[in-house]
Amino acid sequence: MYIRGSRGIHGIVFETKEFNTEETCPLFSSTHAQSPKSRRKKKREQGLMEGKENGPDGKKPGRVIDGPTNPMVTPLLNDLYQFTMAYAYWKAGKQSERSVFDLYFRKNPFGGEYTIFAGLEECIKFLANFNLTDEEIDFVRDSLPGCEEAFCDYLRGLDCSDVEVYAIPEGSVVFPKVPLLRIEGPVAVVQLLETPFLNLINYASLVATNAARHRFVAGKSKLLLEFGARRAQGPDGAISASKYCYLGGFDATSNVAAGKLFGIPLRGTHSHAFVSSFMSLDEIVDKALRSSDGKSTCEDFVSLVQTCLTKIQNSSSLHGVFSETNQSELAAFTSYALAFPSSFLALVDTYDVMKSGIPNFCAVALALNELGYKAVGIRLDSGDLAYQSTEARKFFCAIERELNVPDFGKMIITASNDLNEETVDALNKQGHEVDAFGIGTNLVTCYAQAALGCVFKLVEINNQPRIKLSEDVTKVSIPCKKRTYRLFGKEGYPLVDIMTGENEPPPKVGERLLCRHPFNESKRAYVVPQRVEELLKCYWRGNAG
Amino acid sequence: MYIRGSRGIHGIVFETKEFNTEETCPLFSSTHAQSPKSRRKKKREQGLMEGKENGPDGKKPGRVIDGPTNPMVTPLLNDLYQFTMAYAYWKAGKQSERSVFDLYFRKNPFGGEYTIFAGLEECIKFLANFNLTDEEIDFVRDSLPGCEEAFCDYLRGLDCSDVEVYAIPEGSVVFPKVPLLRIEGPVAVVQLLETPFLNLINYASLVATNAARHRFVAGKSKLLLEFGARRAQGPDGAISASKYCYLGGFDATSNVAAGKLFGIPLRGTHSHAFVSSFMSLDEIVDKALRSSDGKSTCEDFVSLVQTCLTKIQNSSSLHGVFSETNQSELAAFTSYALAFPSSFLALVDTYDVMKSGIPNFCAVALALNELGYKAVGIRLDSGDLAYQSTEARKFFCAIERELNVPDFGKMIITASNDLNEETVDALNKQGHEVDAFGIGTNLVTCYAQAALGCVFKLVEINNQPRIKLSEDVTKVSIPCKKRTYRLFGKEGYPLVDIMTGENEPPPKVGERLLCRHPFNESKRAYVVPQRVEELLKCYWRGNAG
Repeated sequence: MYIRGSRGIHGIVFETKEFNTEETCPLFSSTHAQSPKSRRKKKREQGLMEGKENGPDGKKPGRVIDGPTNPMVTPLLNDLYQFTMAYAYWKAGKQSERSVFDLYFRKNPFGGEYTIFAGLEECIKFLANFNLTDEEIDFVRDSLPGCEEAFCDYLRGLDCSDVEVYAIPEGSVVFPKVPLLRIEGPVAVVQLLETPFLNLINYASLVATNAARHRFVAGKSKLLLEFGARRAQGPDGAISASKYCYLGGFDATSNVAAGKLFGIPLRGTHSHAFVSSFMSLDEIVDKALRSSDGKSTCEDFVSLVQTCLTKIQNSSSLHGVFSETNQSELAAFTSYALAFPSSFLALVDTYDVMKSGIPNFCAVALALNELGYKAVGIRLDSGDLAYQSTEARKFFCAIERELNVPDFGKMIITASNDLNEETVDALNKQGHEVDAFGIGTNLVTCYAQAALGCVFKLVEINNQPRIKLSEDVTKVSIPCKKRTYRLFGKEGYPLVDIMTGENEPPPKVGERLLCRHPFNESKRAYVVPQRVEELLKCYWRGNAG
Repeated sequence: MYIRGSRGIHGIVFETKEFNTEETCPLFSSTHAQSPKSRRKKKREQGLMEGKENGPDGKKPGRVIDGPTNPMVTPLLNDLYQFTMAYAYWKAGKQSERSVFDLYFRKNPFGGEYTIFAGLEECIKFLANFNLTDEEIDFVRDSLPGCEEAFCDYLRGLDCSDVEVYAIPEGSVVFPKVPLLRIEGPVAVVQLLETPFLNLINYASLVATNAARHRFVAGKSKLLLEFGARRAQGPDGAISASKYCYLGGFDATSNVAAGKLFGIPLRGTHSHAFVSSFMSLDEIVDKALRSSDGKSTCEDFVSLVQTCLTKIQNSSSLHGVFSETNQSELAAFTSYALAFPSSFLALVDTYDVMKSGIPNFCAVALALNELGYKAVGIRLDSGDLAYQSTEARKFFCAIERELNVPDFGKMIITASNDLNEETVDALNKQGHEVDAFGIGTNLVTCYAQAALGCVFKLVEINNQPRIKLSEDVTKVSIPCKKRTYRLFGKEGYPLVDIMTGENEPPPKVGERLLCRHPFNESKRAYVVPQRVEELLKCYWRGNAG
């Protein structure tokens, strides 16, 4: 943590010398990740979500920006005090005073060293469509004691055409105290953005960070699946979790709505209920399965599965691993394969993984193989995942070898069951054969730390710097409108983020700069940047553009 | 934990002998609390949300049930595997097999001894409006490899007219393993309810429980305000938190949208930004304030405030507590009082609570008092809340005494600043003068435990009991369609919840009953109930009603 030595405001910064962003977070490799939606809609919104370095932007004639993903995000998604203050500003004739607010957080979550910034797109969508309906205005009036009718007229005309928003690009790696957003505009209007912006950014950034941390622990080569819908904190706890976990480095989600809304790849097969809903193979009525190339039809796929099971039972190296497998499970697997012959993946732990689930799966997979299909793999959802995955892999490899089935040993092994950073790390240390992790509860609820503490502080009004004092020095706000820069070193890695006063000269490439910590005088360092990037880019320029 | 000794299925139960529900949770006093919405709409939905003991219910001609509060709650808010399974059931001709699922949790949250059940109303609203649009069906088809067109026709006709839902009333105190809901119907349809139901119930019950625990610690007499919108996990993490905290025993929320949607009382005044947006008293242009009775007008309220401040400064017992107060703060308070003379409540910790905030507040409150208004009180948002509230109370009482202002000592003191169960408990132990607690982050994100682990398990299909085995005995499901009862003792307190098989005779008043734990043979007890209440009531009877 160092900051710039100069007049006025001084930059909070971070050391990134050992922060190998390539390894840490897939987002950083392209400076900032694209949110799935912005990726899909890039063309239409070009310029808006890209952010331009203080260039013209914002509302342009004829350009329509969709509202927030969740239609419940309205100006009433607000703390009452934003409206009481708006009224008091209006009563005092102060409502249009030009104010500058910084949105930032004070500490990285999960005891970590970085945060992934997310939620910006939704903020801009909210702001672009900011408007109070008559019904909403009536409700606000009734909620404010003694509210004058003229205030309702004021609210009726309110929009964000006088507001400017500067932000760090969504998906960036960010650090404490450096503003993620700088919002400028009429004080009463900007205050009405505080609660919705915080709501849209706090959880988004938290869960994106959590996802990035899981990606870091799991490594680049593993498939990461977000399975959190059922345990998330409410319906859009689920939907936005899917969006921001994808942004944070996950590969797919189980959440169909998120798949539809954001184009995120979907994953999912069947649950224990499906397995236990079957009684026996006799239940399967339609036993025919066309071969993969469509040239022939196996009239009794059930018999073929049974033959394959016998083949495994008779195989010398697999002999003794199991005797009788659970027949209702075999019926469920067979039935599922008949429905999805080209994407057969089975949950193998309903009864007994090694004695029933795996042999049953292999029997069905071998039968599919005879018809030219390739089974995808298995999911393990309980027990010792390291041991089970290793044993399962041995079993698959033995079949490949003994029955001469190419690639059978490469079957994908997915693991789920209350996984989190620590359990994935522990699995890595034990050694395992898991290819894909399905992570739910701990990921989407951010169980290890359920909230990020972003704040929204007034730093300037009418060109006068403002500060909020506190006995706790970390809670003192840093006054003044700021510029922020990321300085890069010789190898192209970022070294430090700094803040300067608005009118201070920007740092120059090749020029030595003294950076100072804003709260700790003894923390200071010289930096010679090889590249300088201004962090806050314009995402909304109101009418000025 | 005891259960019933009898044939078949045996009830999991809990000991409630020392569980004084009157004291523990405000909900229980009326057996179950009403959700705010159901309270408002009671008339319209009578019968639905009340639940009838196996009586006729559900869809009736002409009766319209609104959709879920959040329009994003659609059948696509689902794990993909519910659709892949639906397809596989349909392919196997099993889709309409009559199934019974139990929804329950395995462990009380927060290391506690009870849970408040919530989310039922939203589930019923979802179910009543269950329908897939053509666009949604197209998306599902494209997500399922090899999906046949006829399956889309099946989806098109799908609704919940063949589903029955039995549930414990929303707001009830509930315990692990006892089904909160029993859902019966065609297996493919009921599985499509799993993820949305879990999503709607898990967080709702968790946050309602958290609210009830905060109420228990704070005591009955304190005002509890939910201030979580900005830190909640997404927009309806905020809105549903407000709803379910109210259900769990909170008095009000800061969330305007929740106030509008559910009729929850709103609270809120101003933030630090409002205080620091002022420079000096000169900014106040319109200084006139009409008296409370409307009979006279004070032309210069600012001077009146200054006079009152001098009066406090000259008062003997307050002498020396402070010298010069912060003038921008005084300007902000004065301005706020001009806007809200009848509901003046000030945030007093922007600069220095005892040396500036409290005297400034008192000056404005005294000035209001001279015009016949009563100030409401103060909010403390940092520092040692026990000490500050006690000092503030002394100050208020001294003014009441010295300046002869009746009730000035009873000024309401609100405390906020990252409060939770532990900090409120610690304040109680230290002694404090806080009247109202504003609780945000820890309450709405359920920081102490961010997820409740409700599950949805198949217990019967085609009248055959089904079980899910597991190496972990607590994860083994309890098969069969069940009835559940709460048994009450002599003093009217609940003693135990039990489960029985569907066709077993119900427990009888005055008759001794052996209750047995389902997983622990050594845990058993005799109970003689004085009152028996069947817990699962019918909330949805499909077409059968």
